Amino acid sequence: MSLMEKVVNRAGGADRPSEKPNNAFFADLIATITDRGRDLFGLRPPRPPQAPGRADALVELCETLLGGKGEASGTAMAQQVIAAYETLRPQEQLTFFEALGEKFGPDEALLDAAVEEWRLTGSETAATEIHFASEPKRQELFRRLNRAANGTRTLVQLRADLLKLSRENPELRRVDRDLAHLFSSWFNRGFLVLRRIDWSSPANVLEKIIRYEAVHEIHGWDDLRRRIDAPDRRCYAFFHPALADEPLIFVEIALTEQMPGAIAPLLAEDRAIIDPARARTAVFYSISNCQTGLAGISFGNFLIKQVVQELQRELPRLETFVTLSPVPGFRLWLMAADDVPMSNEERTMVAALDQWSWMDNPVAAETARRVLEPLAAYYFLRAKTPDGRAVDPVARFHLGNGARLERINWLGDHSRKGMRESAGIMVNYLYDLNEIEENHEAYANQREIVASPAVRKLLKPDA
Amino acid sequence: MSLMEKVVNRAGGADRPSEKPNNAFFADLIATITDRGRDLFGLRPPRPPQAPGRADALVELCETLLGGKGEASGTAMAQQVIAAYETLRPQEQLTFFEALGEKFGPDEALLDAAVEEWRLTGSETAATEIHFASEPKRQELFRRLNRAANGTRTLVQLRADLLKLSRENPELRRVDRDLAHLFSSWFNRGFLVLRRIDWSSPANVLEKIIRYEAVHEIHGWDDLRRRIDAPDRRCYAFFHPALADEPLIFVEIALTEQMPGAIAPLLAEDRAIIDPARARTAVFYSISNCQTGLAGISFGNFLIKQVVQELQRELPRLETFVTLSPVPGFRLWLMAADDVPMSNEERTMVAALDQWSWMDNPVAAETARRVLEPLAAYYFLRAKTPDGRAVDPVARFHLGNGARLERINWLGDHSRKGMRESAGIMVNYLYDLNEIEENHEAYANQREIVASPAVRKLLKPDA
Amino acid sequence: MSLMEKVVNRAGGADRPSEKPNNAFFADLIATITDRGRDLFGLRPPRPPQAPGRADALVELCETLLGGKGEASGTAMAQQVIAAYETLRPQEQLTFFEALGEKFGPDEALLDAAVEEWRLTGSETAATEIHFASEPKRQELFRRLNRAANGTRTLVQLRADLLKLSRENPELRRVDRDLAHLFSSWFNRGFLVLRRIDWSSPANVLEKIIRYEAVHEIHGWDDLRRRIDAPDRRCYAFFHPALADEPLIFVEIALTEQMPGAIAPLLAEDRAIIDPARARTAVFYSISNCQTGLAGISFGNFLIKQVVQELQRELPRLETFVTLSPVPGFRLWLMAADDVPMSNEERTMVAALDQWSWMDNPVAAETARRVLEPLAAYYFLRAKTPDGRAVDPVARFHLGNGARLERINWLGDHSRKGMRESAGIMVNYLYDLNEIEENHEAYANQREIVASPAVRKLLKPDA
Amino acid sequence: MSLMEKVVNRAGGADRPSEKPNNAFFADLIATITDRGRDLFGLRPPRPPQAPGRADALVELCETLLGGKGEASGTAMAQQVIAAYETLRPQEQLTFFEALGEKFGPDEALLDAAVEEWRLTGSETAATEIHFASEPKRQELFRRLNRAANGTRTLVQLRADLLKLSRENPELRRVDRDLAHLFSSWFNRGFLVLRRIDWSSPANVLEKIIRYEAVHEIHGWDDLRRRIDAPDRRCYAFFHPALADEPLIFVEIALTEQMPGAIAPLLAEDRAIIDPARARTAVFYSISNCQTGLAGISFGNFLIKQVVQELQRELPRLETFVTLSPVPGFRLWLMAADDVPMSNEERTMVAALDQWSWMDNPVAAETARRVLEPLAAYYFLRAKTPDGRAVDPVARFHLGNGARLERINWLGDHSRKGMRESAGIMVNYLYDLNEIEENHEAYANQREIVASPAVRKLLKPDA
Repeated sequence: MSLMEKVVNRAGGADRPSEKPNNAFFADLIATITDRGRDLFGLRPPRPPQAPGRADALVELCETLLGGKGEASGTAMAQQVIAAYETLRPQEQLTFFEALGEKFGPDEALLDAAVEEWRLTGSETAATEIHFASEPKRQELFRRLNRAANGTRTLVQLRADLLKLSRENPELRRVDRDLAHLFSSWFNRGFLVLRRIDWSSPANVLEKIIRYEAVHEIHGWDDLRRRIDAPDRRCYAFFHPALADEPLIFVEIALTEQMPGAIAPLLAEDRAIIDPARARTAVFYSISNCQTGLAGISFGNFLIKQVVQELQRELPRLETFVTLSPVPGFRLWLMAADDVPMSNEERTMVAALDQWSWMDNPVAAETARRVLEPLAAYYFLRAKTPDGRAVDPVARFHLGNGARLERINWLGDHSRKGMRESAGIMVNYLYDLNEIEENHEAYANQREIVASPAVRKLLKPDA
Repeated sequence: MSLMEKVVNRAGGADRPSEKPNNAFFADLIATITDRGRDLFGLRPPRPPQAPGRADALVELCETLLGGKGEASGTAMAQQVIAAYETLRPQEQLTFFEALGEKFGPDEALLDAAVEEWRLTGSETAATEIHFASEPKRQELFRRLNRAANGTRTLVQLRADLLKLSRENPELRRVDRDLAHLFSSWFNRGFLVLRRIDWSSPANVLEKIIRYEAVHEIHGWDDLRRRIDAPDRRCYAFFHPALADEPLIFVEIALTEQMPGAIAPLLAEDRAIIDPARARTAVFYSISNCQTGLAGISFGNFLIKQVVQELQRELPRLETFVTLSPVPGFRLWLMAADDVPMSNEERTMVAALDQWSWMDNPVAAETARRVLEPLAAYYFLRAKTPDGRAVDPVARFHLGNGARLERINWLGDHSRKGMRESAGIMVNYLYDLNEIEENHEAYANQREIVASPAVRKLLKPDA
Repeated sequence: MSLMEKVVNRAGGADRPSEKPNNAFFADLIATITDRGRDLFGLRPPRPPQAPGRADALVELCETLLGGKGEASGTAMAQQVIAAYETLRPQEQLTFFEALGEKFGPDEALLDAAVEEWRLTGSETAATEIHFASEPKRQELFRRLNRAANGTRTLVQLRADLLKLSRENPELRRVDRDLAHLFSSWFNRGFLVLRRIDWSSPANVLEKIIRYEAVHEIHGWDDLRRRIDAPDRRCYAFFHPALADEPLIFVEIALTEQMPGAIAPLLAEDRAIIDPARARTAVFYSISNCQTGLAGISFGNFLIKQVVQELQRELPRLETFVTLSPVPGFRLWLMAADDVPMSNEERTMVAALDQWSWMDNPVAAETARRVLEPLAAYYFLRAKTPDGRAVDPVARFHLGNGARLERINWLGDHSRKGMRESAGIMVNYLYDLNEIEENHEAYANQREIVASPAVRKLLKPDA
Repeated sequence: MSLMEKVVNRAGGADRPSEKPNNAFFADLIATITDRGRDLFGLRPPRPPQAPGRADALVELCETLLGGKGEASGTAMAQQVIAAYETLRPQEQLTFFEALGEKFGPDEALLDAAVEEWRLTGSETAATEIHFASEPKRQELFRRLNRAANGTRTLVQLRADLLKLSRENPELRRVDRDLAHLFSSWFNRGFLVLRRIDWSSPANVLEKIIRYEAVHEIHGWDDLRRRIDAPDRRCYAFFHPALADEPLIFVEIALTEQMPGAIAPLLAEDRAIIDPARARTAVFYSISNCQTGLAGISFGNFLIKQVVQELQRELPRLETFVTLSPVPGFRLWLMAADDVPMSNEERTMVAALDQWSWMDNPVAAETARRVLEPLAAYYFLRAKTPDGRAVDPVARFHLGNGARLERINWLGDHSRKGMRESAGIMVNYLYDLNEIEENHEAYANQREIVASPAVRKLLKPDA
């Protein structure tokens, strides 16, 4: 017990903070949710120095939490574990996670008995029983921790810590598997809320949009405002009620007249703003996941399809829903893959792509285009991973969602990063809600890359 | 496909209804949640007549939903299943549930392989693997259904239907087990929101408070108002964001000066209202679960402890937190149990308890009191279930929560129901947050009934 | 000062109650507004007995409030006056109002000087100056009182008290004039918020809808629910942010296929509900003002036109916006006016209209119809007040709004009240937003009753 | 009419935009309010070029609005005027304002009659009648304009335009007087909502805090965050529901242990943050008005007193509420006033105060201190305006509110601006709610500057 006290020095027995009673029924709901909303990135109190036995004490506390006392304490004991976890330093985290992997697995006696019963009867009921008998105890531990005031938030952070340490400690993946399983249930799309992000959104949410943007960096608040406040721009995010001020994933959209082929004009400070009523195309030009601790829990597919519906409702004259996407594996594939149908001369040119300003030379640029466009088509349509999927990770995402590869845009991104990774190419994936199921099936079952005739035509006849 | 079309006649391919983009960030969140809030009890469109093959078609649709097409469709296909389920008639539901039990269990080949691996290696990893390999497919099915707009709500209704049919079809319990497992994860206390219910709460919520009150019936809106709007009354409920207008469980509280011994004065129309600042005692006189479909998912323990904390914060001068509870098993036990230490004469009196107005006769009443008080003490302190727990279900709940049996109140409820079930007795359970863990341990481990000296003294010396 | 203390026994120097700081920006706004929302009709503490000097002390306190101390005290002193006013009994109110009329008028010296200046210069500036110089001091007093937490609410109540006493004390009308002037500025339509009232509205708002319904009584909560929760019914109200839970005026609407001619079928418990998408007509069948203290501040005109726009937006297929209105002055006019073109025989029939069930006799009913329809047409089209306006008060309201008298419905309301007041007749007024300006001008300038050809045709040729 | 059409080219007859019906009662209220919240500073469509007759057409439209048609049109015509006004260029505005001053004054015939009646009767009623008879027609015009969707917002902007043009066109002050009168009624403190501003406030509100800070400039979003998000900082603003995203006035507060004497440490990036529970002092270090169009409508007095109460409630251990204020008139007075008791040598030193870094020289600094502290005391305690008030405008504000001059802080602000305006001095004004009424009276009636003994002691004996 004194060990525990040592570790719980911050929790003080405090239970769930006030969800104050309030006459305003719905306001109360929000206030409650927002009270919980302490920032994952906010200032934390300084962590106490690592101390021998702290991680062990925490493990002991977890065992108590799993017992009857934990049940009786309401949320108080979970609160203590949560508060104590937040003070652990990485080495202590590792010790703690290892214990989770070793001491909180399935109850082997129970499992043995269930397996035996199944061997004897072979019944459906016995098969099902095995499932419940084999549940690792840490799943119940995580569920009990989640009862605490800041539980969900801390567990998401815990998984981020765990994933980091798993890289060098693969045995921790066992622990992660349980956490990932719970998260994919808790963060079920049915529990997510889609919200538009705009200039009237709370600053603590917007700050995270700036921080989490992973595709085309947002350069401060003015840049952000251009992306979310202009009448021909939209931004949507998924939120979970237990993390009300933490976007989980967001997408940035430009409303345009034509399907765009390059990113720079979309983001230019001095671009002409158009009346949304004149837009016929919605361009998803950036999708960013926000929470490391939710890695592998997929939201993107739902987000895009939901937003397409939102936009159709708001702007019925929109006809085309496309992405403007990078091709982040293209250059590497060009340089490294051994099946690239390229002459040595072409190979030399590609190697130097990001090293000189050949783009300014119309002849050189045209030469490069004639070489790279067919190679890009080949990359998408012919190159495959060993198990037959598209090589490009972004392509795998959108094709897996049922989108169609619509257009290859030469020099769509001639930033340094764009040249280095995508050889200056960007592509559009088209989302046609009437065809996504069919497209998906074609890709999933026959590994068929659904692409427009225009893309197909780029392919050299013999490729 | 035409079969499916038959069954999906109401769904029309409609996906999730608008969660309209809106500048008011938090307002949007509420609006969204409330949009979903269609009443479980609202008018439903008339169900189509039972038709051969409709349940089978729905099963087929579920299989598709579990496949790749279901993944690609976003939420559209889940929406169709949800809409189709709502049209099933009981006999079709039964067919559908039977198929869930038979065709959506664990994948036996996977399970076989995992068990084999475990036998060979005996490793923790292999044990964990068994858990995932044995997951019945219906769990993933339910998770996918939950993605639909009204998914959670319909699944809760589906489980209510399932529980009803399980009574005569025990093999359906297999299906229920998976649903119960998911619900206990989804309705984790960390996802619940405590809200005060008062006269400014929405009518559609209040209506449910009237309907769901299970202990002391609420006789219409005026009676409700007396219970939630008077300054010395409180009502709190847990809500889940995905069922924003459906209370899950609620508790009614009276603020009083003394610990009360009878219910009628608390509910009297013409009682004197006291200034909450003068109250020293909070009386939990009614706790009601609301959702049949959430049977067995326990909220009451958390609700009481949370509300104690809320009240302590709002009214720091409150000192005592007690229930005023019925003893619903007492009379039956008196009549039926063979170990009741009662003379034949006493037995005759008890049998007639609810048949004449002996209460009006002071001599008879006093006689009854002298007989029944010691018997009540015996009932609580000595009578046990075969596995050593308290006989009374309400006692099991509160003692399991760590409360203490504080007082036995003769004629606490002399309504017909109170006489018939509780032999006119009510009891107070005391919640002292500092002692609940210890009390719980004593009850859970040593089957000790923690009771006040006053209660113990009622026990006859030889009992 | 001791007098003051006597009168302020309830106010305790308390200033504006908490508008608690709160992270949820908009939630805070609502919470604040709702905190203020103490019910005009809620339980008040018992008023102290009338005491000599209490009204005088209050007057003294008002004088202090108008001085520098009142300015310096922030809202504290206003709070005291407000609290003290709420304790006055009617006789004390009268004394207080009389003082408001006598001691808080314009500053005569200032007024004299301003008038003199104007006589000398005749300048626009001097004319304007007179306006400010002549402002009765009670206007500033009321503005200062409004600064208190519950100020607006109490002032509205004060005016209700004042209007009641004015009936027998006409000199109080001077005071009312200032209050009415302020209210018509404060309750400017630009500050009102239109909200739909439905089954998810707060109970304390709905309760007032039941109480304030002035046209067709609402018989309890079930009846209310039929009127606001059915898919083919709507209810809208105006609210003021400072009285957030007090509807100011509301309108009840039925969505129908045809323009209805009778009220009973609209309100029938067992009527068939229609799909709003099939509705072509919106029927405004009841408009009720809620606050006696806001008598004469007109909201109805704005409410109807705003709701027409709301409905057009929600249901673009609606084509017709009509009322179904009583004719409350018809029967009285029939009986009393000396210019009614009626035979003696007819007169006898009309006198007995509400006394026997002649409606059940088809012959009698047809006879009555033939007599009364032309008389109704005459009543609307020919009968006029001395200043040339329509005799019927409801007609004056709708014609003044620019509506057109569309149809006269025989036996539209055969309830006892309908027979007694309207001789069983109801009418439809048509709101066509494209014609309201023109209709209004015709009525306002030429006293022309704009009516449909069908109504005109009912008029006897010689009428 | 064609003239009107020319001017109303943007309004299109559109009435008040959607306040969409919505089940979420309170959410609706907010959404409504926020929908209106178009930014006063947002992008406006380009204004059409000035055109002959546009201002005249607008005047004509205003006359129509004041007539019966305007009444009948609901809000449509007001909407047109509002939309048209927004397109006027400054020269057209001037023409329009001049017309408001000349054509929309009191009705002289009415006024004449009322004055006559008063002369004859001398009655209170007649005096009151003069007030209503003399109301300039533009007051009713402004009230009608306020009915439009964006009315209040546009009128506030209109007054800002008017004040600008009034500087060179003093005859416009007549128009302003009416507008100021209406605003002081509409923006009555009872209609304002106090809200805490923090890092979860909407970005469009925070942006305005940055822009409007008038005392100590906020250098971008990071600086803002330090001022509103640190646990020992607070910011509160008043809002009006009709301008929901426009702060009217805000105050920035530092929670400290001691009363601070200098501004730089409070704003330092690397200052130590303290636990608010340890704070005993709340320092109001900046108060800024936000709306030029509300100049002269006083909010500051109420804001400070309200915030003192809020803070007392949140942090009951706070004991001292003070400002840390500049002395913006001191240096000018030193240089210019002829009654300053200063030697020539001292005068020379003061003249050079902001020209060299004498502060770094301890001897020089001490010399300056010895000269300037007594002069500052003299400035506050002895120097007076011709009408006997404090010379310093900030002093006039706080003393007028009933605060006490608590301390003079040498070198409280040694920024260039601080040296140039305040000669490096800052002062603390103390708000003690128990003494403000008395202090105010002393200042208002006897022109007494209420100051602490410490300040008084600084005064030279003979001063």
